[in-house]
Amino acid sequence: MAIDLAPVMDAEALSAFFAEAFPHGAQDVHAAERFTIAPGFVRIAFDPDEAGLRPGGIVSGPTQMGLADRAAYAVILAHIGPVAMAMTSNLNYSFLRAVAFRRVHADAVLLKLGRRLATVDVRLWQDDPGNVVGQATVTYAIPG
Amino acid sequence: MAIDLAPVMDAEALSAFFAEAFPHGAQDVHAAERFTIAPGFVRIAFDPDEAGLRPGGIVSGPTQMGLADRAAYAVILAHIGPVAMAMTSNLNYSFLRAVAFRRVHADAVLLKLGRRLATVDVRLWQDDPGNVVGQATVTYAIPG
Amino acid sequence: MAIDLAPVMDAEALSAFFAEAFPHGAQDVHAAERFTIAPGFVRIAFDPDEAGLRPGGIVSGPTQMGLADRAAYAVILAHIGPVAMAMTSNLNYSFLRAVAFRRVHADAVLLKLGRRLATVDVRLWQDDPGNVVGQATVTYAIPG
Amino acid sequence: MAIDLAPVMDAEALSAFFAEAFPHGAQDVHAAERFTIAPGFVRIAFDPDEAGLRPGGIVSGPTQMGLADRAAYAVILAHIGPVAMAMTSNLNYSFLRAVAFRRVHADAVLLKLGRRLATVDVRLWQDDPGNVVGQATVTYAIPG
Repeated sequence: MAIDLAPVMDAEALSAFFAEAFPHGAQDVHAAERFTIAPGFVRIAFDPDEAGLRPGGIVSGPTQMGLADRAAYAVILAHIGPVAMAMTSNLNYSFLRAVAFRRVHADAVLLKLGRRLATVDVRLWQDDPGNVVGQATVTYAIPG
Repeated sequence: MAIDLAPVMDAEALSAFFAEAFPHGAQDVHAAERFTIAPGFVRIAFDPDEAGLRPGGIVSGPTQMGLADRAAYAVILAHIGPVAMAMTSNLNYSFLRAVAFRRVHADAVLLKLGRRLATVDVRLWQDDPGNVVGQATVTYAIPG
Repeated sequence: MAIDLAPVMDAEALSAFFAEAFPHGAQDVHAAERFTIAPGFVRIAFDPDEAGLRPGGIVSGPTQMGLADRAAYAVILAHIGPVAMAMTSNLNYSFLRAVAFRRVHADAVLLKLGRRLATVDVRLWQDDPGNVVGQATVTYAIPG
Repeated sequence: MAIDLAPVMDAEALSAFFAEAFPHGAQDVHAAERFTIAPGFVRIAFDPDEAGLRPGGIVSGPTQMGLADRAAYAVILAHIGPVAMAMTSNLNYSFLRAVAFRRVHADAVLLKLGRRLATVDVRLWQDDPGNVVGQATVTYAIPG
């Protein structure tokens, strides 16, 4: 592969970048996000707040899709650095199982990191990585 | 077509149903939604609030996708009635243009209303229906 | 919109380009394709051959998706000219109804024609434009 | 998980079923497909023929998408048996890298096998599983 999958940001830098990019008060800001970074990979551990709660004690669809989008963004930034202005061009989300109102993990894997487009597979899971509750394929445009 | 595209709910009934289904405080509740219904069609006129605001004065991705999902849900319910428990199984969203922080319209068209699956095309636009800012294809599972 | 939606190719030029780009013998070459062009729009009238026939007298999934992809490609080329090397980056296809083994139309509408990305809505229909048998959203990358 | 991921068909049975379901002469019939089955997983090793060849020595888009669809179908059938009439409802495909005209592998993983819907992640790769050339998320409807 022509892709250099060595991360260029650590979890702390990513966290600081996100805190600035999504200021307090915005819909999908969540103080309680923690990042784990590896080559070609970012995991977000996410604790939903009341804004994402639905009747029946489940996490809303927009909250799930927002989390998947941030995880995709995170794994791209972790590998190209915070200077680039990447923008989501397409997000395909499959709702697989009801998401209980407790910690959700989002595992983002870089499928392609091109000069202009990046494609990321994201799986949301709870309790155990095998219990996948949602899957997203996300494409970002990377301005040149 | 084997599909009966005559709506069975009017805008008032749909509005009342949504107000109950998405109680105050939830992430994508928006008092300022107005519905227009026609055979095979629902339009939502939506005024975003601060929760969906992003730096630069644009509407967030999750807010856009949530609106598209609600519009799809609305056009299905308008044609099968509020009794059915429909659930999103897949949502594919293309981000086409930045969405300015003012009124957004979502036009939902029933492509298929089967016994078990419904597929809806949704286009988000501003100012003029020709200025499409986002497009979604949404599939709902309809429990039998 | 910043998009100039005046076509720069006519049906004859488009037809000649496709004949050369998809030489005889390739899987989705179809002599029996006719193009109709309008601003922001291309329609292909397509007569399937035996290679796309499935038991039960229906048109295969890959044939449908290939047709949707060609229609998206056609509407982009019709508006930027045959010089550009556009490539599909994402195709999302919803199978709505069985496609009978007779003429299928594919209506492609440009949702966005950017400098680097183009997004196209394609609907396949038979007999009547209201009888939509499949829907695709197709994103092309346009090399700069 | 409520899903029983023990396969109920072996590679030979799957191969025989496909040979019958896609009779000789159809567009995406390929004698040269070999199946590997594991819990929740099917791999197809596929050797493209001339029908899927494109100028430049690459494998066509419809051939890639058809392979992804068959792999999704195979992993579902392998776990529910050949009696069920499953039908693709949605296929989302990301073209990541040019596919050279030689053996392609398709790895299909069951994300969800519900009573009515199954969702499958498929990755096409060449030479090495890390060299992913295409990714599909495929949803099948399973008639009750």
